[in-house]
Amino acid sequence: MKKFVNDPQQFVPEMLEGIALANPDTLTYVPEYNLIMRTDAPNENKVSIVQGSGSGHEPAHVMVVGKGMLDAACPGDVFAAPPMDYVYETAKRLASPKGVLLLVNNYTGDRMAFDMGKEMAEADGVKTEILMIDDDVAVKDSTWTIGRRGVAGNFFVIKAVGAASERGDDLEEIVRIGKKVNSVTRTMGVALTACTPPAKGSPLFELGDDEMEFGVGIHGEPGRERRALASADEIVDDLLAATADDLPFVSGDRVALMINGLGGTPISELYILYRRAHSQLAERGITVGRSYVGEYCTSLDMAGASLTLVRLDDEIEELLNAPADVAVRVF
Amino acid sequence: MKKFVNDPQQFVPEMLEGIALANPDTLTYVPEYNLIMRTDAPNENKVSIVQGSGSGHEPAHVMVVGKGMLDAACPGDVFAAPPMDYVYETAKRLASPKGVLLLVNNYTGDRMAFDMGKEMAEADGVKTEILMIDDDVAVKDSTWTIGRRGVAGNFFVIKAVGAASERGDDLEEIVRIGKKVNSVTRTMGVALTACTPPAKGSPLFELGDDEMEFGVGIHGEPGRERRALASADEIVDDLLAATADDLPFVSGDRVALMINGLGGTPISELYILYRRAHSQLAERGITVGRSYVGEYCTSLDMAGASLTLVRLDDEIEELLNAPADVAVRVF
Repeated sequence: MKKFVNDPQQFVPEMLEGIALANPDTLTYVPEYNLIMRTDAPNENKVSIVQGSGSGHEPAHVMVVGKGMLDAACPGDVFAAPPMDYVYETAKRLASPKGVLLLVNNYTGDRMAFDMGKEMAEADGVKTEILMIDDDVAVKDSTWTIGRRGVAGNFFVIKAVGAASERGDDLEEIVRIGKKVNSVTRTMGVALTACTPPAKGSPLFELGDDEMEFGVGIHGEPGRERRALASADEIVDDLLAATADDLPFVSGDRVALMINGLGGTPISELYILYRRAHSQLAERGITVGRSYVGEYCTSLDMAGASLTLVRLDDEIEELLNAPADVAVRVF
Repeated sequence: MKKFVNDPQQFVPEMLEGIALANPDTLTYVPEYNLIMRTDAPNENKVSIVQGSGSGHEPAHVMVVGKGMLDAACPGDVFAAPPMDYVYETAKRLASPKGVLLLVNNYTGDRMAFDMGKEMAEADGVKTEILMIDDDVAVKDSTWTIGRRGVAGNFFVIKAVGAASERGDDLEEIVRIGKKVNSVTRTMGVALTACTPPAKGSPLFELGDDEMEFGVGIHGEPGRERRALASADEIVDDLLAATADDLPFVSGDRVALMINGLGGTPISELYILYRRAHSQLAERGITVGRSYVGEYCTSLDMAGASLTLVRLDDEIEELLNAPADVAVRVF
């Protein structure tokens, strides 16, 4: 296993400790609950925005806690939902009179943990809502999901509800905004290689030298089909057809376009994908209003990428354009 | 070869086209010279800051063109210096009455191209200076270098001279600042895997399952020694000893700490390295004043990382703290 790791069982806590040490003024780490939260949270004048999920998808979500994005993230172990008591504790610590919004990417383990955590928090008088994200068009049901999976498109939901909470919107209004953004967001991914979970020490699945997994899930679970490796342009055309035809996105639409790396693919290749996606959208009469190229929601060290489209309107653009300040940066 | 690529010979131009398409309001792309420049450059009230190098190190340098950083980048092909006429054309197009500063990471091919390009531009009356960066402590001379190599630490030089140029500093003063930052910057890297250049289609060198290259160069060239794979903490301790003892950094120093991913290593692992580096610096009485964790200067899809230390003072901190606006971002 070619990884920077000590004890594989300590992979997540050591990463979280690193994040906290690198951001001493803005982030607080509560080791007992894998909790990374803003030092200035909860704020009684805003709804607290929380996302949990398995680890291994970084920067999602522990590295995007900060002003204008998440107030807290409570991750589980690698590719494992957080235990329900982590969710419960997080909701209690983030309790604001304006409420707590729990964002959940649609995976059955996460839904269960958050449903139960929410129930426990509500029994303590914490006002909470859950918002499910299910942007992945690849498959209807999946290995660990009933309904569509929630993947990288959730970043647009986080950004929109984060901005709305900063300006003081109420919980009901923020839920409306989040549902709206989710409803116009579509994603599909492709894996060129498998990923290696630290505790397993070997690749999670087998993929031949001339194969790719088209429509892969963010834990490496199967997508639409195992296919022969194709050129960058061919891959983009197929990802674009799957996502654009699903909503559908049509001529005259203005969109945000995200090319998300899955962890082992360099950013140079992501811009090669972006180039084709941009030109093919233009051919469909669709304008790219906002561009996002880089790593957002990864699958450990998997080589691969996903493509996300969001249909923009004035309300969504204003929220995406609001300031945000999170740990991950270049300079 | 598990890459998103079309014709490998078009890897660089297709990437550059993607960058330009994603940043239509701020960046101009001149295909004949692999040139990415700010749309508002040259500015007659500021020194133009230019960096060239081989491609394959993204985001360095084509993705960090923008306000407060580079005015232009002129890359060569993958791991190849830009031709001298690219440097010449870039200097001419970026010509400002205040001058053009050419930043060069110390590799012999790059030095040659930039020395000749500078001479040609000066014959046309363009005021230019070259600033060499040589932060890599791994080896004194190397496969393609006389003297120390220039690697990820050059980001601190770019940031400092970029900020100084924005406030209108003269060329001589900017050169002084750049040399000063370079003189207090030390880096060393380690490779866990080789990288695969698109045009080669196979790994650039062989590295056993239980081996790592300690002190690797950013083109995969040999470092200090081939070693047995070690734990994350052991690797950090050795990188830290090599860099910290070189300047040396001593008790009472305040530093910037960068953990740079080499392209194939997920950011989760980089924070595990950061955690140890931060605690070990504390044991040495050295305070981390600024933290940088992510991908800055990569080697295509190589799994690996480098550690950079910069000794801070008020002048350097002010420059590192100045605003910058470049293409690479999360949100």
